[in-house]
Amino acid sequence: MLNRQVLLARRPQGWVTQADFRLVETPLPELAEGQVLVRNRYLSLDPYMRMRMNDTPSYAPQVELGQLMVGGTVGEVIDTRSAALKNGDIVSGLLGWQLYAAERPERLRRIDTPIAPLSAYLGVLGMPGVTAWVGLELVGPSKAGETVVVSAASGAVGSVAGQIARIRGCRVVGIAGGSEKCRHVTADLGFDACLDYKADNLADALAAACPDGIDVYFDNVGGRIFDLVLERLNPFARISVCGQVSQYNETEPYATRNLRSLLVNRVKLQGFIVSDHMPLWPPAMRDLSAWLSAGELHYRETVAHGLDRAPEAFINMLRGDKIGKQVVKLD
Amino acid sequence: MLNRQVLLARRPQGWVTQADFRLVETPLPELAEGQVLVRNRYLSLDPYMRMRMNDTPSYAPQVELGQLMVGGTVGEVIDTRSAALKNGDIVSGLLGWQLYAAERPERLRRIDTPIAPLSAYLGVLGMPGVTAWVGLELVGPSKAGETVVVSAASGAVGSVAGQIARIRGCRVVGIAGGSEKCRHVTADLGFDACLDYKADNLADALAAACPDGIDVYFDNVGGRIFDLVLERLNPFARISVCGQVSQYNETEPYATRNLRSLLVNRVKLQGFIVSDHMPLWPPAMRDLSAWLSAGELHYRETVAHGLDRAPEAFINMLRGDKIGKQVVKLD
Repeated sequence: MLNRQVLLARRPQGWVTQADFRLVETPLPELAEGQVLVRNRYLSLDPYMRMRMNDTPSYAPQVELGQLMVGGTVGEVIDTRSAALKNGDIVSGLLGWQLYAAERPERLRRIDTPIAPLSAYLGVLGMPGVTAWVGLELVGPSKAGETVVVSAASGAVGSVAGQIARIRGCRVVGIAGGSEKCRHVTADLGFDACLDYKADNLADALAAACPDGIDVYFDNVGGRIFDLVLERLNPFARISVCGQVSQYNETEPYATRNLRSLLVNRVKLQGFIVSDHMPLWPPAMRDLSAWLSAGELHYRETVAHGLDRAPEAFINMLRGDKIGKQVVKLD
Repeated sequence: MLNRQVLLARRPQGWVTQADFRLVETPLPELAEGQVLVRNRYLSLDPYMRMRMNDTPSYAPQVELGQLMVGGTVGEVIDTRSAALKNGDIVSGLLGWQLYAAERPERLRRIDTPIAPLSAYLGVLGMPGVTAWVGLELVGPSKAGETVVVSAASGAVGSVAGQIARIRGCRVVGIAGGSEKCRHVTADLGFDACLDYKADNLADALAAACPDGIDVYFDNVGGRIFDLVLERLNPFARISVCGQVSQYNETEPYATRNLRSLLVNRVKLQGFIVSDHMPLWPPAMRDLSAWLSAGELHYRETVAHGLDRAPEAFINMLRGDKIGKQVVKLD
């Protein structure tokens, strides 16, 4: 029995290509005392991984050339040298783009009684869902009647962020690329409106969709959309900077013009990474689980089948060619 | 006896000129019941006034064409129809670019026992000093050992912001225009370093002056310097956006490139206007008064003599041709 892994073969220049990855077979990891062996069932693909492929300093160490790609996983314990976990336990962790991994239990999260399919623990009940909750919390939970704008609204994080704001009684306006995504965001997720940044004149569309201005912006994309949103902010607006995916593949950063708004509107802006806020994980999971069980929170997944499809699925995700959370089923 | 006033004659296009103002003589205001008549002794000149001269929406109403220029003042009550203030009382207020004004006592602040010359109540013990204190407070008071960068470091607000950070044990790096200002900032105000943005290669100078990166940026200028500071921020850095004076006279805003730093470094940014935070005025004044009395806080003023010199002094201030707080003595 062999392990299979996807390694970083070279650092992408601009857009990622399949040649930036290499699929290899390796021996199964040996279990050290205190470790468990996990057979991963699902791999999460997320935009932050793009930054880890660069060699520029970021908030997390880059992936070294020739090393395993980083990634969240859900899997099953199949061997154990720890009293903390037993065979058959379901765990989530950061075990990377591979089928098998040896890990210490304290670096895994046991999923006791799943209330949704396991892949949901990589999405609405996992890092992306908690990220959405934390991002809103850090800038002050939105109040009923406020206008909340969410970019990448059909994505794993944006879809949850907007729904949380909707549940809290806000007017929620999504921004997404393409009519099919926008339809999903309004019809399935219940946003009040969704603007198609590929088709609409976004400045005009924002003005029309936000007649009372924008109180909260949950930013997943940065760049031009960030700049346009700045123009429509209300006094005391808050911006949660969760991602800047429009910039990750650009070699020249977008030139932002409307920073005057930060002063004029006394804006509070907070960049954040969910892993800095682990104490917020339990309250976030409580809310998300309750909303999901009550049918108030909806999600969609795009599933790629097989580890060898992970690079292609990752590239498609960066291009926005999917709806909802992108996962890989590791058959 | 006549009042003299400076009115807004036309809206400036780009840089302000003297022709944008008009000096007029008008009758003394009539006192209504409950008002007092104030003879202004000092007029404050501040960068925010430049924004009030535009007709674009901002955080405060613009000055209408033909109307009195807005401005902070310190003066003496010379007639009263209110029990709250008596002749001879010294008051600060927002009485504008004029010699005399009728005002209600609740819109004035009585200066009971001056601990400094009256003009200081327009600077280190007035709106600029409180602004510096509030701006640091809103992003979390700086801790000993942190590196704090302050732009417009020789100005009324920046000079106090940097000294507060110094008093709190931070490494303080100022940015100012010209060697004379930089000398003042280090020699007189005690900053650890001051960079001359007109002479130095600012990117290199910032790197050299902040070997441990930047933890707090107190921004008075916006534009290119803001962009350069973004490149040197530490994780969890905080930015207090107090002013963007580099932009006030520009018809095209600066294009900012380094917003990636907001996410990568999980930056907390807060734009603010001191008048939104009036409850912080008393604790700020307590600290500022104590530090001034103890000789820990220093300030310098540039004084123009006579109301007719106010437009010229204002233009010079916007160009940066002064050190410290710009006031007009209303002889």
